[in-house]
Amino acid sequence: MLRSHTCGELRVSNVGQIVTISGWVQGVRDKGALLWIDLRDRYGITQITIETENADKDIVDCVRSLGREFVISVTGKVAERYSKSDKIPTGDIEISPVKIEVLNTAITPPFTIEDDTDGGDDIRMKYRYLDLRRNTVRKNLELRHRMAIETRNYLDKLNFLEVETPVLIKSTPEGARDFVVPSRMNPGEFYALPQSPQTFKQLLMIGGFDRYYQIVKCFRDEDLRADRQPEFTQIDCEMAFVEQEDILNTFEGLVRHLFKSVKGIDIPTLTRMTYADAMKFYGNDKPDIRFEMKFTELKSNFLDLVGGKGFPVFDNAPLVVGICAKGAAEYTRKQLDELTEYVKRPQIGASGLVYARYNTDGTIKSSVDKFYNEEELKKWVITFNAQPGDLILVLAGEENKTRKALSELRLEMGNRLGLRDKNKFACHWVVDFPLLEFNEELNRWHAMHHPFTSPKPEDMALIDSNPGSVRANAYDMVINGVEVGGGSIRIFNKQLQARMFDLLGFTKEEAQAQFGFLMNAFEFGAPPHGGLALGFDRLCSLFGGSESIRDFIAFPKNNSGRDVMIDSPSQIAQAQLDELAIKVELQTTK
Amino acid sequence: MLRSHTCGELRVSNVGQIVTISGWVQGVRDKGALLWIDLRDRYGITQITIETENADKDIVDCVRSLGREFVISVTGKVAERYSKSDKIPTGDIEISPVKIEVLNTAITPPFTIEDDTDGGDDIRMKYRYLDLRRNTVRKNLELRHRMAIETRNYLDKLNFLEVETPVLIKSTPEGARDFVVPSRMNPGEFYALPQSPQTFKQLLMIGGFDRYYQIVKCFRDEDLRADRQPEFTQIDCEMAFVEQEDILNTFEGLVRHLFKSVKGIDIPTLTRMTYADAMKFYGNDKPDIRFEMKFTELKSNFLDLVGGKGFPVFDNAPLVVGICAKGAAEYTRKQLDELTEYVKRPQIGASGLVYARYNTDGTIKSSVDKFYNEEELKKWVITFNAQPGDLILVLAGEENKTRKALSELRLEMGNRLGLRDKNKFACHWVVDFPLLEFNEELNRWHAMHHPFTSPKPEDMALIDSNPGSVRANAYDMVINGVEVGGGSIRIFNKQLQARMFDLLGFTKEEAQAQFGFLMNAFEFGAPPHGGLALGFDRLCSLFGGSESIRDFIAFPKNNSGRDVMIDSPSQIAQAQLDELAIKVELQTTK
Repeated sequence: MLRSHTCGELRVSNVGQIVTISGWVQGVRDKGALLWIDLRDRYGITQITIETENADKDIVDCVRSLGREFVISVTGKVAERYSKSDKIPTGDIEISPVKIEVLNTAITPPFTIEDDTDGGDDIRMKYRYLDLRRNTVRKNLELRHRMAIETRNYLDKLNFLEVETPVLIKSTPEGARDFVVPSRMNPGEFYALPQSPQTFKQLLMIGGFDRYYQIVKCFRDEDLRADRQPEFTQIDCEMAFVEQEDILNTFEGLVRHLFKSVKGIDIPTLTRMTYADAMKFYGNDKPDIRFEMKFTELKSNFLDLVGGKGFPVFDNAPLVVGICAKGAAEYTRKQLDELTEYVKRPQIGASGLVYARYNTDGTIKSSVDKFYNEEELKKWVITFNAQPGDLILVLAGEENKTRKALSELRLEMGNRLGLRDKNKFACHWVVDFPLLEFNEELNRWHAMHHPFTSPKPEDMALIDSNPGSVRANAYDMVINGVEVGGGSIRIFNKQLQARMFDLLGFTKEEAQAQFGFLMNAFEFGAPPHGGLALGFDRLCSLFGGSESIRDFIAFPKNNSGRDVMIDSPSQIAQAQLDELAIKVELQTTK
Repeated sequence: MLRSHTCGELRVSNVGQIVTISGWVQGVRDKGALLWIDLRDRYGITQITIETENADKDIVDCVRSLGREFVISVTGKVAERYSKSDKIPTGDIEISPVKIEVLNTAITPPFTIEDDTDGGDDIRMKYRYLDLRRNTVRKNLELRHRMAIETRNYLDKLNFLEVETPVLIKSTPEGARDFVVPSRMNPGEFYALPQSPQTFKQLLMIGGFDRYYQIVKCFRDEDLRADRQPEFTQIDCEMAFVEQEDILNTFEGLVRHLFKSVKGIDIPTLTRMTYADAMKFYGNDKPDIRFEMKFTELKSNFLDLVGGKGFPVFDNAPLVVGICAKGAAEYTRKQLDELTEYVKRPQIGASGLVYARYNTDGTIKSSVDKFYNEEELKKWVITFNAQPGDLILVLAGEENKTRKALSELRLEMGNRLGLRDKNKFACHWVVDFPLLEFNEELNRWHAMHHPFTSPKPEDMALIDSNPGSVRANAYDMVINGVEVGGGSIRIFNKQLQARMFDLLGFTKEEAQAQFGFLMNAFEFGAPPHGGLALGFDRLCSLFGGSESIRDFIAFPKNNSGRDVMIDSPSQIAQAQLDELAIKVELQTTK
């Protein structure tokens, strides 16, 4: 071993010992009579101190030749420092070297290896191996390691078996695009990389495995939005002989265990909200409930508190709905204009914003005073349960679009009012998702979760007459407004599964060709089962208080799916293509 | 939960409790007055007993309608059995049902779900989900789970971090064939699936991670021999600031921990053998040292105990070498003929077999008595250190071929003499592998391990004059004659790495294009590092006492790389090919 200790462990109790440490030169300071090296490794920084007058000339020369990020090994005696530092755990000691060996030199790195680096995203990705030397990046990956260990501890104790499912599987056009892999031994045929181990984990249940999990890479060939990766990791789980309640309890237990064991935080039992309520009160199927600010309706199918006053926007809108921002009545005209601009941005899509200030003196001032007198506005205040000092913000328009826009405005107000502290965690379940959603473009029903999700038995009567109203035994886990995962109770009956494929527009032949193996398996004694998958990258980034999953992946890809460090993807040799019986055929621009 | 207990946990202490268990019907016995169901789940089998006279008619009818592998849920009272069974842990109790619910029916499975099934390999693979219900298969996967957990426990305690490396990487033609993945977003370009995370783990060392591991899927598009899989799993590790000794110690610690924690076996410290000795004494770089039977030379470059006696086979052979099989002098003529046939098989390749029986009465009888008298044969006996009752078996011919053939014969004799007990484990290291091996076909040097392996510094002087004699800091771990893994100390210096690529026939441009990122990384302060990878499938099969890794993989592929259960690989849609800018081009038969 090229060290007896790490750079993070020496203390006053080690004073007098002869030790060897190895690491990277964080920096050298030269005060003439005294030289200092800060030597860094994964575990910390230790100071090496050389009194030039008393030290061996070779050592002094060596130290003066060191550059940043040189790799050296230092043998010397641990001494107590004259002036201690409380900034680092090794701040009470230093090492007086008797030998310094340069293990490797380094050219100047293209950015500083500091918590606050001067390197931009692109350069840090190109030199990711240098970026990984930074404390912040390393800590993120250490957190990820700890999360994985604790996930396994929890599930192992509950008799879950980790089973590896295959990576080279079969392409199924349902859902997102597959990455495919040409098979040399079966020319003209392709494997696909799994978007999830869904069918395999169901087969494991049929195989009697009863409690399965896997921390597993999955793949989706989607156009990458910020913070999506073509390969990502899931905590994938399935249980047999269970009902929805059992799964919710088991996995809220997992998340609470993770918060406790990894972050030392006790989080309360997860609350539950129906999908219908989530849409009604938050306009969003993954509401951030770190703060209240629920939607309040002024006009809907069932009521109208604002009609007939001559304000055409409200009169013509099927929905008038708003939020009450606590203590924001003092917002300036400029701030309100900003909010109006915000909701009118194309990605939000509202046509305008109506506000009503409920001033601390009890007066109410709105942007629609022309149409609504103080008495009318009093009704708003009562409906919103507003207090003096609150600000009411109202949008109007088509139902879905307006709820969606108000949801964005609510989150924006949450940000502005400091209600979305990344160190505070609000976790809950959203349940009773619709089984199906209608795809206008393709003019057919889509499975909202996936085609294996079980409808609620009590809603089955509606499956022909009103498919859109059938609810599923499906659930999502939401933390701080982020969907960290979801799952469902599965269909385990061949006839129902066939019915489902039919509803989703599969012909019998297509269903058989793609999922015949699963439907056949259902005939041999399939137990009731269900499960869920949690996005592991996302969960780690939430625990780490970051918005970016990239920070929690050792070697991420950029938005074009490229690894800029190794320069991949890349062209391959003609011989490889020939062996695989494929040919590249680039489209000419139309 | 559709059960209060599993089918494996009820005991006499539960007698009197009302319980619910769920599982598969292993079988129903109908004796008229009494009905029994054996109900099975992952945890065991529990007997349900129905007295037809006293039982509810519905229950009796239900039970009589049950078939094998029906999934049922049974609620009833735990009772002590009249006639207990010591064959199963629940053999002291039975359940008197008050309610039986059929959760799912089952058609007759194509093979019996028993330890000794009547299903052949092909049918069991097609219905792998039924095969997984068999105890033996499930136990193999439970063992695998336990091995993974204990591997992580051991490495986690030693500060190893599990870091996930990417699956979509870059194709490098060196080594085995890559599986490739066309990139839709980068038309005409391809990712490759990793044959190992080699370069990434080295970059992690350069990134200061210092101790890395991963239990990770790797991929090789090779023609599949029996018991090779296109996707396989490795325990992949790397350490920085270490020497070979540190790695050997760390990972022999891992294997000893696994034997202790998983199988309760204390194995001794691993012995070490040089590659040169392995070849000299066993003709094999992964000798099975559960038994001795080392090679003994009668003629080589350095000695000749058999020449000039008129036996042309020995006179013309550069090598005459044999083994001494303890206690096998009684072998019949038929048995010796079998052995001769064995070594003459094309895959063994010897031209014949010479034997000498050292009979218990002290006489010696050989197949070459015509050329060697008793006095000459006495020399053999002394050279082989044979005892009365032993059988000496000798091969002659070209050096490498003869050693290889004798190695096979040695293993065959080990089998015949019962010296290769699968419940006995002999683990050791083979060290000091050659750095390079010459590929006659391509007329150039190949890296014996891989191009990143470091030559031994003391042998560097020979690198130009005699490259074949340069030894590497490379090592393999061998258990019972199976190479379970290997690794090396790596090159961490750009110049040496470039020199290595040059030796291996890379042009500067090729080296830069394929491995430029790694060589560039070496310039920024690369620490000394090394590591190894253990074949996890293989390790599990050894621990499970099986020769087949397939038995330890949940969903294996067959020798054509097909998953016959899901019928993959398969053709994909034209639209998919178009999006990927590729075209299938099947070769017409020549």
